[in-house]
Amino acid sequence: MFSPLIDELMASLRCLPGVGPKSAQRMALHLLERDRAGAERLALSLHKAVEGVGRCQRCRTLTEQTYCGICANNRRDNSLLCVVETPGDVLAIEQAGTYQGKYFVLLGHLSPIDGIGPEDIGVDQLINLLQQEPITEVILATNPTVEGEATAYYISERAKNLNVTVSRIAHGVPLGGELEFIDGGTLAHAFSSRRSL
Amino acid sequence: MFSPLIDELMASLRCLPGVGPKSAQRMALHLLERDRAGAERLALSLHKAVEGVGRCQRCRTLTEQTYCGICANNRRDNSLLCVVETPGDVLAIEQAGTYQGKYFVLLGHLSPIDGIGPEDIGVDQLINLLQQEPITEVILATNPTVEGEATAYYISERAKNLNVTVSRIAHGVPLGGELEFIDGGTLAHAFSSRRSL
Repeated sequence: MFSPLIDELMASLRCLPGVGPKSAQRMALHLLERDRAGAERLALSLHKAVEGVGRCQRCRTLTEQTYCGICANNRRDNSLLCVVETPGDVLAIEQAGTYQGKYFVLLGHLSPIDGIGPEDIGVDQLINLLQQEPITEVILATNPTVEGEATAYYISERAKNLNVTVSRIAHGVPLGGELEFIDGGTLAHAFSSRRSL
Repeated sequence: MFSPLIDELMASLRCLPGVGPKSAQRMALHLLERDRAGAERLALSLHKAVEGVGRCQRCRTLTEQTYCGICANNRRDNSLLCVVETPGDVLAIEQAGTYQGKYFVLLGHLSPIDGIGPEDIGVDQLINLLQQEPITEVILATNPTVEGEATAYYISERAKNLNVTVSRIAHGVPLGGELEFIDGGTLAHAFSSRRSL
């Protein structure tokens, strides 16, 4: 409909999550009509990030250095290791601000149906880390989905014979949540995991 | 929080309309974790579009050629000229599929408060076009906002002395709309612009 370059830009914008044909059109026209400097800056940032960003050698999160900021930080507690699925999970936990240990990022979860096995989510690297570093507790913070639970279970089984405590973050009624609107699965979990006061 | 390159990418993504900090984070992590080829393609498309896309010499719409596809199309009706605010409006009218004339794109509307005057929206170029081409009718299809109405009124005043009919697209109750849910301004307009059957 538009000229080839604009059509190509719209098609390319659809690689962004949550962007359909209408949003892509709006974005392309906005950039070309009003923010060409922003578009050039975005093109450069994308190129630099794709070229430069790799994985942290220790925790597998996204970083352009050999070790990410958290792994390289000597003031963090080396005895705690939190296992999460994505770099976004690291950010969420960091924003909560209470955890002072280090992380290991799986970059996915076990999903045999998609052909994702333990080697794809770096479980061997995680086990090596547990053997080589002075870690005393592994906190499994994978998502409470079927795949996340299976991943947590698999890692706990693999870590059993090593000299570390394996724990799972608590699941239950979120703070500020009203019981009336909480789903049955969460409520059932909250009851079965109740603690004595 | 993340590494500098990823932070820079997130900041750059916010130049896209409707993208806030959370969406930018999701987009940046999605591209880096799962779609680096898409990110490179997007960077290239952005760069090529910003470098290549200019304005059609005749109708001011976005195109990388001297004349856009519609202006260069000899089979379109040269006697009709539809004046719209943005290239997106051209697309919307083209998708409706009934209009066979040509277009003139203002790329904006009169807005003295933002310092946008007639010279910024190419009114002189439009008047030149009306004088030089065999146009018999100008259809004003600017948006039914205060600025769009003012722009339509200004253009109709300028075109008065030229030998062309000036018309405005109809505003009223949209097809499929229920009277109950139509705003008062639209209803009032639908009544004052009623036609005898």
